[in-house]
This record gives sequence, C-alpha cells and structure tokens, in this order.
Amino acid sequence: MGMNENVLKPLDQLSSALAADMEAVNTLIRQRMASRHAPRIPEVTAHLVEAGGKRLRPMLTLAAARLCGTADDRHVLLAAAVEFIHTATLLHDDVVDESRQRRGRPTANLLWDNKSSVLVGDYLFARSFQLMAETGNMRVMHILSDASATIAEGEVLQLTAAQDLATTEDIYLQVVRGKTAALFSAATEAGAVVAGADASVQRALFDYGDALGIAFQIVDDVLDYGGSTSTIGKNVGDDFRERKLTLPVIKAIAAADAEERAFWERTIGKGQQDEADLATAMTILNRRHALNAAREDAVAWSNRAKDALAATPDHPLRQTLSELADFVVARLS
Amino acid sequence: MGMNENVLKPLDQLSSALAADMEAVNTLIRQRMASRHAPRIPEVTAHLVEAGGKRLRPMLTLAAARLCGTADDRHVLLAAAVEFIHTATLLHDDVVDESRQRRGRPTANLLWDNKSSVLVGDYLFARSFQLMAETGNMRVMHILSDASATIAEGEVLQLTAAQDLATTEDIYLQVVRGKTAALFSAATEAGAVVAGADASVQRALFDYGDALGIAFQIVDDVLDYGGSTSTIGKNVGDDFRERKLTLPVIKAIAAADAEERAFWERTIGKGQQDEADLATAMTILNRRHALNAAREDAVAWSNRAKDALAATPDHPLRQTLSELADFVVARLS
Repeated sequence: MGMNENVLKPLDQLSSALAADMEAVNTLIRQRMASRHAPRIPEVTAHLVEAGGKRLRPMLTLAAARLCGTADDRHVLLAAAVEFIHTATLLHDDVVDESRQRRGRPTANLLWDNKSSVLVGDYLFARSFQLMAETGNMRVMHILSDASATIAEGEVLQLTAAQDLATTEDIYLQVVRGKTAALFSAATEAGAVVAGADASVQRALFDYGDALGIAFQIVDDVLDYGGSTSTIGKNVGDDFRERKLTLPVIKAIAAADAEERAFWERTIGKGQQDEADLATAMTILNRRHALNAAREDAVAWSNRAKDALAATPDHPLRQTLSELADFVVARLS
Repeated sequence: MGMNENVLKPLDQLSSALAADMEAVNTLIRQRMASRHAPRIPEVTAHLVEAGGKRLRPMLTLAAARLCGTADDRHVLLAAAVEFIHTATLLHDDVVDESRQRRGRPTANLLWDNKSSVLVGDYLFARSFQLMAETGNMRVMHILSDASATIAEGEVLQLTAAQDLATTEDIYLQVVRGKTAALFSAATEAGAVVAGADASVQRALFDYGDALGIAFQIVDDVLDYGGSTSTIGKNVGDDFRERKLTLPVIKAIAAADAEERAFWERTIGKGQQDEADLATAMTILNRRHALNAAREDAVAWSNRAKDALAATPDHPLRQTLSELADFVVARLS
C-alpha cells in the first residue's frame, strides 16, 4: 500500500481536530491582548502572536482537555493563558539574549525597545493569570504558577551556568525543563485538570508534556550542529558561537582528551573563536559520538512521552499525541 | 498639653501593631526568595528586599486583614505576595528607566545586569502567584492579577505618554493608578477578602488603598519640585530633567500663555534643557499656582481615603490607617 503522501503531519492533525477550539482561543487572545489605554501593548503583542507561531502549547492544552472528555469551555481560557505565558517569555528572552530575529522577523526589542518588551511581557503575564482565575480552578493556578517559577528559574540558571564547562547533564535537564518542558507539562496537566480527569490521568499527561518538551529541546540542540538553516529557523552553529553548553557539547566535554578539553575551554569557556572552530567542533562532536548519543536521548524521551499516554483515555487524540512525539524526533533523520 | 514628642509616626505605629505578623512575612519572604538551582535569584532579591524598604504594601494587607478580624494566617501569605509583586516591579522599573540608584544603593541592573533583573523579577512575580494560590481564595487571584495587569498597563502608558504635552490629568491618574495606587488598593482589598469581610467593607478598603496611593504619588510628584533631596531620596528636579509629565507640570501647561507653552515644549517636549531651566520651571509652576493646586489634590485624595474608612469595623487600626493618610500628605508642609 505504501505511505499515503497526503497523510497529515501530527501538528496539522491537531490543528484540524481542534479547529473550533483554536478559533475560540485566537478570538480570546485578540480580545485580551487589547488595552484601552496603551495601544503599544496590542502592537507589540500582535507582532509576535500573529507572526505565525505553531501554537503548539495551547494545542497541547486543548488536546489534553478534549482527550479527557471536557464538558465545558474552560480549556479555551487555559489555552489562551498558556499562549500568553509563552509570548511573555519570548519577549523577555529576546531582551535577555539581545536577539534581533525571531520567526524570521525583527524582534520586538529591535522594532520598539527593550522597555516595551519588558513591560508588555509583564502585561501578558498578568493577563494570563486573569484568564486562569476565570477558570475558577485553584489547582490550575498552582500548576501554572509553579511552571512560571520553574521557567524563570531555568532562565536564570542558564544565564549563570552559561560558559561554565562544569555544567552537567543534570543541570542541562533543569535548564531544559525551565526553558521548554515546564510549560509543555503544565499545558497538558492543566488541560486534564479542567476536564475533571482522574489524578492518574493528570499525572500521565504531565509526564507526556514533560518528556515531549525535553525531547523537543534536545532535538533543537542537536539540529543546531546538524540541521540546515531552513529546518531550524536559525543558523547552524549559533549555539556554538553563543557559547551555549547544550547536550552534545556536555557529552563531548565529558569524553574529551586533554587537547579537546583545551579546545572547549578556549572556544566555549573563554569565547576565543575563529572561523575554522565550528568545523573542528563538529569533528570532535562526531569523534565522541556526542550528536548520536544526544539523538538517542531525544528518542528515549519521545518514547517516555508515548508510554505515558497508555494511562490516558482511549480517544483518537491519543494517537495524534503519540504521533506528535514521533514527529518531534523525526526532524532528526 | 501640647504634642507628645514621643508620639509614634503612623508607619511606626503600624510596624508596632503588626510586629508578629511582619516577622512571619519576613520569614516567608526569605524562604520563598530562595532557589535550589539558581543562587543569583536570592542574591538579587536580597539586595532589594533587605535594603530597608518601608514594607508599606504588605503592612497595608496585614492591617486590612487584622482590621477585619481575620481568624487565620492567610493574610501573611498575601502580604508576602504583595511585597514580591512590588519587588518584581521595582526590578523591571529600574531596567526600563535605566536607573543607577534606588534606596540610596546601586540598582540590581547596575550591580549584576539587565538580564538578571528581568528574569529575577519574573521569578518573583511567579512566586507571588504561588503564594496567592496557597490562600485557596479565588477572589484574591482576581484582585491581584487585575492589579498586576493595571500596573504593567500603567507603565506602558507612562512610556508612550512620556514627553507628550497633550497628557491630561485623566491620563496622569491612570498612570498613577498603575504605578502606585493599583497595588495599594489590591493590598487592602485582598486583606479584607481573606479576612472574610463583607462586600461593603472590601469595597471601602479598596477605596482607601486607591485614594491613599494616589495621594502618595501626587505628593511624590510635588516634592520633586519642592522637597529637599534627603526628604525624597532623589534629587529635586529629577522629573523635570527626565521630562516626566507629572501633575504640577500638567496643570501649568493647561494654564500656560504662549511663551510658557514654548518653554514646556522646548524643555519637556523636545528635551532641550540648560542649567537655568529648572529655576524657570519653578517660577512658572509658582506663577500658575500649579504646585499649590497639586497639593490641594493630594489633600483631597487623602481625605477620600479617610472617609472610606467610615464603612470599616471599629478597631484601633482604623485610627492608625486614618493617621497614615494624614501622614502621607504631611510630607508636603
């Protein structure tokens, strides 16, 4: 029979299965990013929200709630809240990283200024807590405020751990949970909670989001040393040039001989890089099988995500979420 | 009999009446500003939290709750949450304003960097929502998320209205509610809510906090043109040099003749200032009775704050809060 070439990718399947919900989320986002007094707020927000992001995080909330048979529309409030937290985080990240481009467009901090990005991020963060409060569910407040603290803590940790060659895989995992997985797992867990799912199902959907987020970020970090610029939306080697201690480099440093260690100390530790160094880094990463080992970790996390779904209700979306976990690591091959 | 020279100022009276509660708040703040993974977080937070701020906002929460006869300790959680929101706001403000000094010490953005101030502020903001969630009271989540949105909106409004000579007293009031009064009124209202006060008392304590905050900010803005540096903790004329359209200037512009209008357009609108301009500004402000008119507004708001207390329970703290409203404007004479 062969592969059906028209088979929808998991993200498109999610978009299609959740189209009505997503439409409601988008309407809500547009309403709530408005400001009666400060037009700068919707300008900055629209620049980012309407730049064609995948809306992956709010879709995870919607999918988890639908999978658990939600009987009302509170998951829509929650999905908008999750997207606002994500948008606030991106605005602040771009200030912290002094980024000039996101999603192929100039960043808000470049188009307006750092001040606007900081304050509009704060506004969206506050708006997200208003939306959560409207669900009337206190457990949701706990989940998303915990996630928000983990996100900020992970960012600070990344700031202070940056360029520190002693960074371990454990610290990397904490950073990754902060920058990516905490919001994924909060999105899926909170979706299960507003749908009234059992504690075991809530836990399973937390585990799914956590593992999916970690797989997602490891793949991103591997592709930075191997993907084409069009696949990853940034330039190959950006992490190297920015001296980020991502999983492939951490693995290579753990296995390094004296000469390789000196190389990492010079290029990442001290930031003394010349043009040929990226190619040398790639050679060392391959020699130490660091990219392959990181790839295997990503696949293992993807499998953990799929396994977690076993405890969730039998529903077509369960298969879609399972395929999403495959899709996340399929970018590697 | 004459004045008792040992009479405690209202702030000291509050500190004294709420000493046990404040001790619990300080302990909680120290616990919750910790981070298992990122020591930068407590470093930055401690720099600000332990710099000897007056803790006015958490004391307002404690006082409101005690005034309403609270029977448990949830007001302590709430007071710590309020102080965290305030601290997060200061960290972000100093980044936005590129400040170098606060409370007589170098700012966190100067001692560390803007990145740390942005991210630690985000962390404290998330921590504050965790604390609120622990009260288990959804109304409190609404009040403080609404206040947080108003604060951020007011800051953005100030950013975009800055240097705009068309700024009206209405816009000024919105900015002041954002930068000061929203957290005062949320602090007092939420204190009444966790204490289980009637809706009319909640409303009265909201009104008290709102009016007190507005009076407080107007006084600050008047003192910027008339106080001594030791009274206001910053230099006389800072607002003028930073081209801020505060109430005295808005009133003077509304009454300006052509020559005065040209002066304001040059100095505030265009920022072309020389050394003699501050003295000229003071002359115009006095000629147009702008400082006196702003002073009268502050006294009127202080009176509104005191009037609001009539609907609150008869309790020694009611008198202290009333004297606090007097004390706020007493700085003017």
